[in-house]
Amino acid sequence: MCKRIQDSFDRQGLMAHLGARIAHIGPGRVHIELPARPEVTQQHGYFHAGAISAIADSAGGYAAYTLFPGNTDVLTVEYKINLLAPAVGDVVEAVGTVVKSGRTLTVCQLEVFAVRDGRRKLVAAGQQTLIRVDGSGR
Amino acid sequence: MCKRIQDSFDRQGLMAHLGARIAHIGPGRVHIELPARPEVTQQHGYFHAGAISAIADSAGGYAAYTLFPGNTDVLTVEYKINLLAPAVGDVVEAVGTVVKSGRTLTVCQLEVFAVRDGRRKLVAAGQQTLIRVDGSGR
Amino acid sequence: MCKRIQDSFDRQGLMAHLGARIAHIGPGRVHIELPARPEVTQQHGYFHAGAISAIADSAGGYAAYTLFPGNTDVLTVEYKINLLAPAVGDVVEAVGTVVKSGRTLTVCQLEVFAVRDGRRKLVAAGQQTLIRVDGSGR
Amino acid sequence: MCKRIQDSFDRQGLMAHLGARIAHIGPGRVHIELPARPEVTQQHGYFHAGAISAIADSAGGYAAYTLFPGNTDVLTVEYKINLLAPAVGDVVEAVGTVVKSGRTLTVCQLEVFAVRDGRRKLVAAGQQTLIRVDGSGR
Repeated sequence: MCKRIQDSFDRQGLMAHLGARIAHIGPGRVHIELPARPEVTQQHGYFHAGAISAIADSAGGYAAYTLFPGNTDVLTVEYKINLLAPAVGDVVEAVGTVVKSGRTLTVCQLEVFAVRDGRRKLVAAGQQTLIRVDGSGR
Repeated sequence: MCKRIQDSFDRQGLMAHLGARIAHIGPGRVHIELPARPEVTQQHGYFHAGAISAIADSAGGYAAYTLFPGNTDVLTVEYKINLLAPAVGDVVEAVGTVVKSGRTLTVCQLEVFAVRDGRRKLVAAGQQTLIRVDGSGR
Repeated sequence: MCKRIQDSFDRQGLMAHLGARIAHIGPGRVHIELPARPEVTQQHGYFHAGAISAIADSAGGYAAYTLFPGNTDVLTVEYKINLLAPAVGDVVEAVGTVVKSGRTLTVCQLEVFAVRDGRRKLVAAGQQTLIRVDGSGR
Repeated sequence: MCKRIQDSFDRQGLMAHLGARIAHIGPGRVHIELPARPEVTQQHGYFHAGAISAIADSAGGYAAYTLFPGNTDVLTVEYKINLLAPAVGDVVEAVGTVVKSGRTLTVCQLEVFAVRDGRRKLVAAGQQTLIRVDGSGR
């Protein structure tokens, strides 16, 4: 499971370009970390909502993918995310957790924490719908 | 109005890092373009949902900002986005349009088109809530 | 098409209980009206967000259904709705419009207008994802 | 706190009309129950998504309201809800829980459970944004 997910992640040009990395893979849960750097900021120097959303979306997608059989693929149908607080810190960590895994559709909870001096603060929360696509074996 | 928005945009490290640029600024409407390059792809070589969302969020934010007085700032409260089709093309263009501009909150419609050989296809659609923050004069 | 939708609507206990009625059925678009009465209000006497959402969800669901073959059914996967203004008036009208109709999933735009002395005002806007379920022939 | 919320709830014509009642009030958390009856069903006899959303929205709104000072009011800005499974049972229970309580905006998690023969099943999950309005003292 881990290899399949890491391989897919490594083919995502955007994740490498942002500097994101997988921090945890478990059944129905994946964490993705993004260290602070000027290339992922908005106009005030905080983490950009777009970067936060990108890793949240990926964390949820791979969380769903952990529960899928091998010869399948996952696509994001939609997601909704609230930006709760300015994302300031050394790193942000997105946690995707499967809430409901169905035959066709999966729903995930998305949480993003900013980590600063070892303390974690919830800076974004969302909910995501994904669809399983059969037969690709990508 | 245009200068204020372009200046803010230019301070967003993420937008430069992705290669995004403002394509249009009008009252209540902003377009942001992102050319295709490996750095903005997902595992199948399409534009990554995270990149699409990032420019959609920025387009909506700046669309709201066009209607705000000078000494204010805008923050994304939340947004929801549906990925409607694989985003394949030479460039994707995000269009943010103000649906309702209130004293405190603004709601925008988000649309993202993939442009391929001169044809535009809607690949994502969403809705966003933003809040006006007074007094920053950033 | 119209009969199939009206028949399904007539089996929804909630729509009758609220006093809602179908006002328009066209390909990919359905309007549902709800007249003002104390039974559909919130604590200030405006239309309740729950009543507004209920007719918006139904309008979108039936809009999707207009484009489906006969032996199928439609289910709401999720929706997001912004309440833009207090809903005051003689009637509220929800308009569901198909944005993207796929083989499995359909995405609709949702709009709700309050009508007062003949003038329409947009009081809610949303976006909805629906899934086609085959073989029911209900 | 409880009296203030119960009084407001009792003024919501829709909640009485549906047959909903408050089942629990705690700091940052409110439960609302809706017993099964034909008046709250959709075309297959399940609880209607509109009824489920209505009590979820109210549960979140009152959860936010428990943390507000007396002379204020709460309005739903927007919410997003996923319908996870057909809602079949003797009663559905919506649980609204505050995730982030800010000066102006509050974000709540929404969960709806169907209770059947004493067993609870998650049938809907969502996320909601609310705004505090000062000075009404309604």
